[in-house]
Amino acid sequence: MAEKQTPTHIEVRYAETDQMGIVHHSVYAVWFEQARTQFFRENGADYAEMEREGYGCPVLELGVQYKGPTHYGEFVDIETSATRVDKLRFRVDYKLTVNGKLCTTGFTVHCLMKDGRPTREMPEKFLKLFNETV
Amino acid sequence: MAEKQTPTHIEVRYAETDQMGIVHHSVYAVWFEQARTQFFRENGADYAEMEREGYGCPVLELGVQYKGPTHYGEFVDIETSATRVDKLRFRVDYKLTVNGKLCTTGFTVHCLMKDGRPTREMPEKFLKLFNETV
Amino acid sequence: MAEKQTPTHIEVRYAETDQMGIVHHSVYAVWFEQARTQFFRENGADYAEMEREGYGCPVLELGVQYKGPTHYGEFVDIETSATRVDKLRFRVDYKLTVNGKLCTTGFTVHCLMKDGRPTREMPEKFLKLFNETV
Amino acid sequence: MAEKQTPTHIEVRYAETDQMGIVHHSVYAVWFEQARTQFFRENGADYAEMEREGYGCPVLELGVQYKGPTHYGEFVDIETSATRVDKLRFRVDYKLTVNGKLCTTGFTVHCLMKDGRPTREMPEKFLKLFNETV
Repeated sequence: MAEKQTPTHIEVRYAETDQMGIVHHSVYAVWFEQARTQFFRENGADYAEMEREGYGCPVLELGVQYKGPTHYGEFVDIETSATRVDKLRFRVDYKLTVNGKLCTTGFTVHCLMKDGRPTREMPEKFLKLFNETV
Repeated sequence: MAEKQTPTHIEVRYAETDQMGIVHHSVYAVWFEQARTQFFRENGADYAEMEREGYGCPVLELGVQYKGPTHYGEFVDIETSATRVDKLRFRVDYKLTVNGKLCTTGFTVHCLMKDGRPTREMPEKFLKLFNETV
Repeated sequence: MAEKQTPTHIEVRYAETDQMGIVHHSVYAVWFEQARTQFFRENGADYAEMEREGYGCPVLELGVQYKGPTHYGEFVDIETSATRVDKLRFRVDYKLTVNGKLCTTGFTVHCLMKDGRPTREMPEKFLKLFNETV
Repeated sequence: MAEKQTPTHIEVRYAETDQMGIVHHSVYAVWFEQARTQFFRENGADYAEMEREGYGCPVLELGVQYKGPTHYGEFVDIETSATRVDKLRFRVDYKLTVNGKLCTTGFTVHCLMKDGRPTREMPEKFLKLFNETV
């Protein structure tokens, strides 16, 4: 079971808004990735280090449900959790709130690559991410 | 029935790559939007003009399936089509190819807003977008 | 004299890297803006609030000197200071370090707009930003 | 003497605007890079190919003068030219217009890298870029 439940805290950047006066919908995937990085790191899997060891986690699928806008001047909190889909793929879920109010949910599906190929052999530290009894 | 089938032709930008050496997954939503703009325009609904008239089409949902990477130096083609989901919502689908090879598919779900509120009354020119007999 | 000297602390995002394996040079302007927002806020001038009051600070000029790269996995610190150029324009300077090592310097030049027009009448709270005896 | 004078033609993307209703100032560096890529390519130096050959052109300096805004719905044209600064560095200049009206000027300074180190030995095809009698 992943232990980390500290939300990722992100300040909305002016550059992230569009002329509708809200954060552009493409930005959430970038925020999710920052949350994923922190979630990995706090569970012992530093992604920058993993890349140096030859691992990679390409995104196979992305889904975002926009329930309400976010604005410049706000701070968003993202809760992250991960589950395994099958031997090769895992899914990360994101719940984004502003001042406790739910704004957006989303998910990404990944596989684990080692030296350029999908691998079923996840390193021990990586397995800790998933919400399951190992 | 939407008449427009001209694919949107986009040159991959260096800034759109990441250190994995491929286009970052968040970029596709931006490309989809450029394809949507062209699709709207070629079917008679100029979105910049629509905004000046008080309309807006916020994104309610985004889905992307990454089937293969794209790279700097490549040009991507995006085919766009639209369908109505219900009285309030419509969906736009995107099919992205590089040299005829399918790379990515995706969709966005929108509602139509008029003066800040969802509306069921779509302007005549807007109805032409949808793949249906009106 | 501006009192704020707390550096802005920013985590490098994966999406901010390019295929050279370093942060793309266009990203620094976005980071500078986040530093500027914090600098303004800590000196009593909340920019989101200023916009609601009818003010704006468009960027008239940008300069960046890249002295060394930054990478995913690193945290950058930005020191910000501001000076007046003349009655209409002011300049903000940025010094970016990683672990105390200087990476990049830059500046932006702005004017202050009120209700869509350049103004010489800066609000009291805004004057506190500048490194000068008022 | 560089022969290419075809301007780079770019459609403004919705995602490139900010809540001021204009294109965000950080976007111009991305557009400049797209113009630089085309300028290189039309003069015989394909940058994607150059990277595969071990070359790189990191940005050492960036300067942008914003003379007027650009908007969603507009198309921008960028004229590009290059000059050598000294044995190691070269400068690329950009002139951005919308419908013939000057909006923004800018420049980037680069060095040429070969296999990770600055080099004075520019390949023949690269020398054609510069506005000089070689």
